[in-house]
Amino acid sequence: MLKLQTVAEVRSFLQPHRAAGRRIGLVPTMGALHEGHRSLIRAARAACDVVVVSIFVNPTQFGPNEDYAAYPRPLEDDLAACRAEGVDAAFCPPVEEMYSPQAATTVSVARLTEGLCGAHRPGHFTGVTTVVTKLFNIVQPNVAYFGQKDAQQAVVIRKMVHDLMFPIEIVTCPIVREADGLALSSRNVYLSPAERRQALSLSQALNWAREQVAAGERNVATLTEGMRQRITAAGPCVIDYVSIVDADELTPKQRVEGNCLIALAVRIGRTRLIDNIVVSV
Amino acid sequence: MLKLQTVAEVRSFLQPHRAAGRRIGLVPTMGALHEGHRSLIRAARAACDVVVVSIFVNPTQFGPNEDYAAYPRPLEDDLAACRAEGVDAAFCPPVEEMYSPQAATTVSVARLTEGLCGAHRPGHFTGVTTVVTKLFNIVQPNVAYFGQKDAQQAVVIRKMVHDLMFPIEIVTCPIVREADGLALSSRNVYLSPAERRQALSLSQALNWAREQVAAGERNVATLTEGMRQRITAAGPCVIDYVSIVDADELTPKQRVEGNCLIALAVRIGRTRLIDNIVVSV
Repeated sequence: MLKLQTVAEVRSFLQPHRAAGRRIGLVPTMGALHEGHRSLIRAARAACDVVVVSIFVNPTQFGPNEDYAAYPRPLEDDLAACRAEGVDAAFCPPVEEMYSPQAATTVSVARLTEGLCGAHRPGHFTGVTTVVTKLFNIVQPNVAYFGQKDAQQAVVIRKMVHDLMFPIEIVTCPIVREADGLALSSRNVYLSPAERRQALSLSQALNWAREQVAAGERNVATLTEGMRQRITAAGPCVIDYVSIVDADELTPKQRVEGNCLIALAVRIGRTRLIDNIVVSV
Repeated sequence: MLKLQTVAEVRSFLQPHRAAGRRIGLVPTMGALHEGHRSLIRAARAACDVVVVSIFVNPTQFGPNEDYAAYPRPLEDDLAACRAEGVDAAFCPPVEEMYSPQAATTVSVARLTEGLCGAHRPGHFTGVTTVVTKLFNIVQPNVAYFGQKDAQQAVVIRKMVHDLMFPIEIVTCPIVREADGLALSSRNVYLSPAERRQALSLSQALNWAREQVAAGERNVATLTEGMRQRITAAGPCVIDYVSIVDADELTPKQRVEGNCLIALAVRIGRTRLIDNIVVSV
């Protein structure tokens, strides 16, 4: 496996593959790879001739009071994981390769970024869509893989690709969970053992909501209030949101109908966790 | 020459050319093609294997009180001009092919778009950079051609391409002028004969400034005041700006030094005209 650090290296590596008409898959990550990332890489490996994983902790998607500096960067482990999954090239650029000091250009998606995490992380999604545009232009993949764990991000990226007419297929892969239900996240390493136990309340609340919907409950206020009670009962935390929205438009729902995204963000101690499920009725 | 109206048609036309490694040139236009546009097409024809001209009056770069509805659309003449210049394909999409009603994504360049035309046409450059991004993603050219007539646009597009890492070379072609000095513009057709004569004051003011600089004048206030006097002496008009800025950063200069863009925008009657020269000292 190649470790590439510059845009020129990526283009030079991919040029003969592109000229030969090979299918190129991109898995954009911020590193700290876990089984969720590895499921994306496996999906790419199964469907593409050439698999590129980008490992870049993107500064512009972190707010000033967020965990950019603390975000885990276990690069050697990540490269070993890529190697084990048969990745062809890992693109690990330094920040200055991705952002010049004079950078002035941003890519923004309106509306879809206003609610959910967008309401609590101003500028976050503009950072995401800008860096993903750069990665798309560097790698020019045929297909790119994103995780359903970041459900709003996946919807926003799809909208951007559609609006800007990127000739790229977007694949969203299911959330990978621990045996006890906790959604995998690079930020789980921040949790103390007690916080780790408390964090189970997130997936448990989502499962409770799914069962309620299966039993016929359609009232969104009833469902979100029930989820909030279950989460706060588990211990001290700050709920950023517990929302039920249209799965494609991310608009708030009064009643569960069609494809709904049930999504939540909760801060336990200093760690912000997100999780979600989709229900279809 | 092919006339293409959908994104799918463009991709299908270009796919074998791209697979064969041919060099693809794009000339993005809003139609109403004049010798300025034709100089861009000739530059593309001389340097590329495949030349695509897009003809699209982009609604998002017009303000609510601007001339979107009135903008000339002589499509048959434009297609004949493309044919005469040996263009391989003209891409003439309907508006709904370029913008879905649910479109939410914009590409913006900060700083460089604040002054000059950007100060008088809010949202204009975001409309330009967004539609050019779409055209780049549809055509995926190796090289794209823009006119120096729209000097700020050319600088903004270069910045966007650099920041977002589009694998595209940008070529800027010189302004083409009538024998008497008037810069060619699709909007010149709006001018009455008297306004047409008055409009000569723009290039004359720029030439006066160039001579003053050649003679040693370096004071920007002296130069812009002299240009303003020459323009207002020619008849009633509204000067949007007469500016001398750094040619790359578009930042205002106090004194002429290095590469300077001398640019102006003047409304004569209902027609807004722009013109510019670059001086290097």
